[in-house]
Amino acid sequence: MSEGKSRLLIVASRGTADGLYPALILATTAVSQGKEAYIYFTFGGMKLLTKQMAETIKPSVDLGLSKEELEQLLAKGGMPSLVDMLKMAKESGVKIYACSPTMNLFGLKQDDLVDVVDEVIGASAFLQMASDPKTLAIFI
Amino acid sequence: MSEGKSRLLIVASRGTADGLYPALILATTAVSQGKEAYIYFTFGGMKLLTKQMAETIKPSVDLGLSKEELEQLLAKGGMPSLVDMLKMAKESGVKIYACSPTMNLFGLKQDDLVDVVDEVIGASAFLQMASDPKTLAIFI
Amino acid sequence: MSEGKSRLLIVASRGTADGLYPALILATTAVSQGKEAYIYFTFGGMKLLTKQMAETIKPSVDLGLSKEELEQLLAKGGMPSLVDMLKMAKESGVKIYACSPTMNLFGLKQDDLVDVVDEVIGASAFLQMASDPKTLAIFI
Repeated sequence: MSEGKSRLLIVASRGTADGLYPALILATTAVSQGKEAYIYFTFGGMKLLTKQMAETIKPSVDLGLSKEELEQLLAKGGMPSLVDMLKMAKESGVKIYACSPTMNLFGLKQDDLVDVVDEVIGASAFLQMASDPKTLAIFI
Repeated sequence: MSEGKSRLLIVASRGTADGLYPALILATTAVSQGKEAYIYFTFGGMKLLTKQMAETIKPSVDLGLSKEELEQLLAKGGMPSLVDMLKMAKESGVKIYACSPTMNLFGLKQDDLVDVVDEVIGASAFLQMASDPKTLAIFI
Repeated sequence: MSEGKSRLLIVASRGTADGLYPALILATTAVSQGKEAYIYFTFGGMKLLTKQMAETIKPSVDLGLSKEELEQLLAKGGMPSLVDMLKMAKESGVKIYACSPTMNLFGLKQDDLVDVVDEVIGASAFLQMASDPKTLAIFI
């Protein structure tokens, strides 16, 4: 019997609300199903891990909503803010990875990041994880 | 002999022309190859399933084209409009799924959606489908 | 022993710097790991293969950077420009595929493209490649 893939590896490459929200929903759902879940923040997505995060999540271009409007929708639905959702994902067991080439590109140091980051890895380690047959890798 | 993956699961998460067009092309191609094909509309992509769809498909940020320009290009090439392409995909056998958490977030009811939707599912059911070894899951 | 997936197929569907940069990084890394690597340029991404490429790479909406700012960051980090990176990827063994339906849609001919293109293929050939169990297919 095939049990399918038991590890979820999400690549969050966009620094926008609509890059982060689905990544968090999927990763926490995967953990609740007994899978391992990782979110790999890279390129534009790396912004979401900086200490200025709450300020730098940009209005989503696709939703036609500002960050404020999205946060209001989330609040109205009894859901936490994006910043809190990230912390809760981490507490539930989701692993948070940051991309070392992107950190170099933007001159970011570990100190510039919020303290949810589990590991800083490069493209090579990422590809190795993503190529594992038990891993479902998705770019968001 | 390995036959590869026999089910295509496309996640349309962007509410723009350049999110919808490749999803429809790939899904109808998959059906013509004898595969099962599903498009899961979520987050920004959910807008594409609302009754206002024809009005709300936003100009694509990546193509530098307005929706009108894209529709003109499609017409010039003898191709149907995006709204008609969606209906034709559905008729050809592509299954259309809508995302329940997104519907809650935006306060959408089944009545607000165009009548192509086959099923409304959540993140958990989506992940189960996507993790199946016979499924090729792609986020667009 | 499972060796995982030995072929990387990246779909570059966005005509922006932040669509191209991660595609190039991942593809060249895959080649350096002994994998086959392909970048399939489609839809908005096809613009990146036109001779006007250096001019048409649009400011990334997600990074909040103009193309000039990104090129400056790359130069400061001792990295090549995006146009040079594409040539270097090609020289290192990355295969460059262009999308025939997109070429039709935009009225592009082979002559309009930079000379890095290895093959022009359609949705059907793409899906066949992507469905292979040894292939890791990612949309960027």
